[in-house]
Amino acid sequence: MNGIKFQKNDNLTPVIIQDREKKDVLMLGYMNDKAFRKTLKTGWVYFWSRKRKKIWMKGEESGNKLKVKQVFIDCDGDTLLIQVELFGKAVCHTGSKSCFQNMLLKRF
Amino acid sequence: MNGIKFQKNDNLTPVIIQDREKKDVLMLGYMNDKAFRKTLKTGWVYFWSRKRKKIWMKGEESGNKLKVKQVFIDCDGDTLLIQVELFGKAVCHTGSKSCFQNMLLKRF
Repeated sequence: MNGIKFQKNDNLTPVIIQDREKKDVLMLGYMNDKAFRKTLKTGWVYFWSRKRKKIWMKGEESGNKLKVKQVFIDCDGDTLLIQVELFGKAVCHTGSKSCFQNMLLKRF
Repeated sequence: MNGIKFQKNDNLTPVIIQDREKKDVLMLGYMNDKAFRKTLKTGWVYFWSRKRKKIWMKGEESGNKLKVKQVFIDCDGDTLLIQVELFGKAVCHTGSKSCFQNMLLKRF
């Protein structure tokens, strides 16, 4: 569907989530074909949970939902970039806006 | 090393590459432990090529190298975000700055 090449071993594709306005990278999740279709149909981001082995809507429990603004596919067709509007304050389960809070290295 | 949890099936970790200044998401690549170490040691981004089965420095042929500015790891420890300065004009082999040029959907 839509030219996405899902990974052969698990039928998933990585999905980069980026804040539409501030352009912060918020998280990386995974979708299977069904999660991708639900995302397009509803306008809210759904992922495949590799831990729980099921589709879930991001924010279904926390309320921190991701409203789809723009969807891009990369040149290889195997990665998605979804620009979103964040409903709520945090994407990360730690309470941070982004999951990428831990800096390993800074160079000037 | 540095708490990175590499994927069990292939010992790789996905790496999001973001323009440090403009904050555009440029591409998603993969590193194994050795590529990650070379990246930190040299300050230039190295990937594991899943197609060619070897480590390569991004831009070694094209000249479009990625200079490491900041490295983040996500809350799960299984994904990296590297903010870079792009040497050259394009990251993508198509000649575009970013690999995410193909828009699948836009919502207002």
